[in-house]
Amino acid sequence: MTSSVSRDPLVPKAGRDTVRRHNLSLVLRAVRDAGEITRAGVSARVGLTRAAISSLVEQLLTIGFLSESGKTFSGLAGRPGTVLKVARTGVAGIGAEINVDYVSVCVVDLAGTDRVRLVEHLDNRGAAPAQVLRRAAAIAARALISAAEQELHPVGATLALPGLVASGSVWQAPNLGWTRVAAEEPFARALAGLRPELPALPVRSENEANLAALAELWFGDLGTVRTFFYLTGESGVGGALVLEGELLRGAHGFAGEIGHVVVATDGPECRCGSRGCLEQYAGQSALLRAAHVDRASSAAGVAELERRARAGDCRTLAALNQAGLMLGRVLSGAVNLFDPAAVVLGGIYGPLAPWLIPGAALELSAHVVSGLWPQTSARLRPSSPATDAARGAAALVVQDVLSDPLSFAHRAAGG
Amino acid sequence: MTSSVSRDPLVPKAGRDTVRRHNLSLVLRAVRDAGEITRAGVSARVGLTRAAISSLVEQLLTIGFLSESGKTFSGLAGRPGTVLKVARTGVAGIGAEINVDYVSVCVVDLAGTDRVRLVEHLDNRGAAPAQVLRRAAAIAARALISAAEQELHPVGATLALPGLVASGSVWQAPNLGWTRVAAEEPFARALAGLRPELPALPVRSENEANLAALAELWFGDLGTVRTFFYLTGESGVGGALVLEGELLRGAHGFAGEIGHVVVATDGPECRCGSRGCLEQYAGQSALLRAAHVDRASSAAGVAELERRARAGDCRTLAALNQAGLMLGRVLSGAVNLFDPAAVVLGGIYGPLAPWLIPGAALELSAHVVSGLWPQTSARLRPSSPATDAARGAAALVVQDVLSDPLSFAHRAAGG
Repeated sequence: MTSSVSRDPLVPKAGRDTVRRHNLSLVLRAVRDAGEITRAGVSARVGLTRAAISSLVEQLLTIGFLSESGKTFSGLAGRPGTVLKVARTGVAGIGAEINVDYVSVCVVDLAGTDRVRLVEHLDNRGAAPAQVLRRAAAIAARALISAAEQELHPVGATLALPGLVASGSVWQAPNLGWTRVAAEEPFARALAGLRPELPALPVRSENEANLAALAELWFGDLGTVRTFFYLTGESGVGGALVLEGELLRGAHGFAGEIGHVVVATDGPECRCGSRGCLEQYAGQSALLRAAHVDRASSAAGVAELERRARAGDCRTLAALNQAGLMLGRVLSGAVNLFDPAAVVLGGIYGPLAPWLIPGAALELSAHVVSGLWPQTSARLRPSSPATDAARGAAALVVQDVLSDPLSFAHRAAGG
Repeated sequence: MTSSVSRDPLVPKAGRDTVRRHNLSLVLRAVRDAGEITRAGVSARVGLTRAAISSLVEQLLTIGFLSESGKTFSGLAGRPGTVLKVARTGVAGIGAEINVDYVSVCVVDLAGTDRVRLVEHLDNRGAAPAQVLRRAAAIAARALISAAEQELHPVGATLALPGLVASGSVWQAPNLGWTRVAAEEPFARALAGLRPELPALPVRSENEANLAALAELWFGDLGTVRTFFYLTGESGVGGALVLEGELLRGAHGFAGEIGHVVVATDGPECRCGSRGCLEQYAGQSALLRAAHVDRASSAAGVAELERRARAGDCRTLAALNQAGLMLGRVLSGAVNLFDPAAVVLGGIYGPLAPWLIPGAALELSAHVVSGLWPQTSARLRPSSPATDAARGAAALVVQDVLSDPLSFAHRAAGG
């Protein structure tokens, strides 16, 4: 794909100007971060001359990555200029989260805004991996049609998967029943088969908790916090470590797994082969079971759980309190080990946070040795709205674009 | 101290040649890493011309950081040269580990070799922090006399402490009974009072497990492993995370704490204020108690434990096996979270590793979700000999010297 860059008349030969490519990235990021900004504002942020900025902005306008409006700012020094924004059409990213009982596909634009969302609830545990990947590709193909109607053209796709993912393979995803599944190529092939008119999309895969954590980092409400632990509840319990704004992947790419910390050695059997894992006490099924909520549809089940908790149902409150205590006990170990500035509760724990946090906070206060967890409200927090794994997956593609806009210039028009 | 650099005729004005300072560091490190090497060898390693290397080497010889022997290598291309080594005298570092029942002081030379070691067994729990720090300074002062006899002149000191250390203070060290103790200044003042003829030493403090992990990283037998978890047993149980060759400190500098993971919520009370912490099952006291070893001296106690284990004493083997299982259970959580390439057992767990590892390996195999822990012999390993916290503390000073040799040039002669 990038080999066609040098054939595009709008783009200088690859390697001809590494510095310029880098500066294009700086300018594009500056505009993205600001939302709306004048050329003078970009110049001040990036630290390049007005002339240099003008030339770079011109190129980004030409290739369709920036747009310009007649609106002017007068608050800044110098004569007022027109306002720049990142383009709402053209280059985009697509992400597909495959979980136990749903597939969620998201298309984001250059600003990272969620522009297309297609969620289907289905039983992925009952099907072979190849079939699940074909289904997910079909959903992604439909999302691409919606994207095209908005003139958005994803230049890459990321699969978000609930398991250990490394080097393009799902090493293990106990809740899906997958072991050593190479997911990227079958998904890419299926998608290419369904949308043969489009250029083939490069596909990568990543752990879903990692992607949800990145979404929180990029689009959430963390303020200055750059080191945090992200805990996500779905069928399983996932985790991710972000250290100074970077995912901590560990030696094999498997860091962050918290769902299989043993809470009680004589506890119930777990799909991982062990007994008494956290999932067996605070996973979605365990929660619904403890609250006696019918499990016909787990998405509906979680909504019902929330409804009952709001209504003050005693059994529901007790189940959530107990799960909060278990989460807090396990989290205190993770906090002692990793010393994060915040712990974010995502997935189903996000909406249920008001009833999980009191118990979890109690355990954190009791067991975090630094004694830094008495005021837990700031440090233990629900995930921000609309920062899930599918959005993180789609935004990961856009990060590549922001890093080197020129490499993707030929795709901005959907070519 | 560094303000006197520009007054030293041997040293160019500070800032006059940043590149040269950097290159001096490269050359000094290259010689240190090689052990023995010719100028041609340094040139090949560093990638600078022979002429540049000769000039840099000359300066390092002049300021006494390198020494030269008549011995020649003929194995390398070009005419044989004399052999360079880092100086065995002159600039050095001193480290002092203050633990519950001992103080261990170490002086290392530029090569990081342990040249002076002074260990005193005493009860630091029974004394006020100020008194303990004065005692440690007295021991360090005696070690400085031994160092001077070897013509070694430490240019800085590091305190290794068994607790949460940040910004020069011990936030909390439950086993010492310390809370918010500013340790550096009293130690520095006491040491200056005892050795008024020496220039005052800059003192810093650090968690002892962190320093032991650095000693293992720098002087141990880890091969290519750069991401590992270091678990150390003393009165308490400490831990440190090393990620790609760097200590992972977390948001407040408190990362790595593993001793207070709750193994059983109804377990015995812990000094940290919680119940059933790992320390209560696998700390030194718990181990000695379980094996029915008299605790009169804990150092002797651990030696006795090892002796009895070697002799096949049933009660001792059972106690060690049980501790190994507990360590393995807690370690499996840490491994799932951090995904290290190896786990190193240090402190008293080093010599006891043969009897701890089987139980720990069993638990790791059962609970590490990646399934990457079937062959535990390579990944779960005792610490290397002579890589303890005091040596890491002393070597931390030498790291500063290696990073910018010129800043310390005026100290090489003990001035």
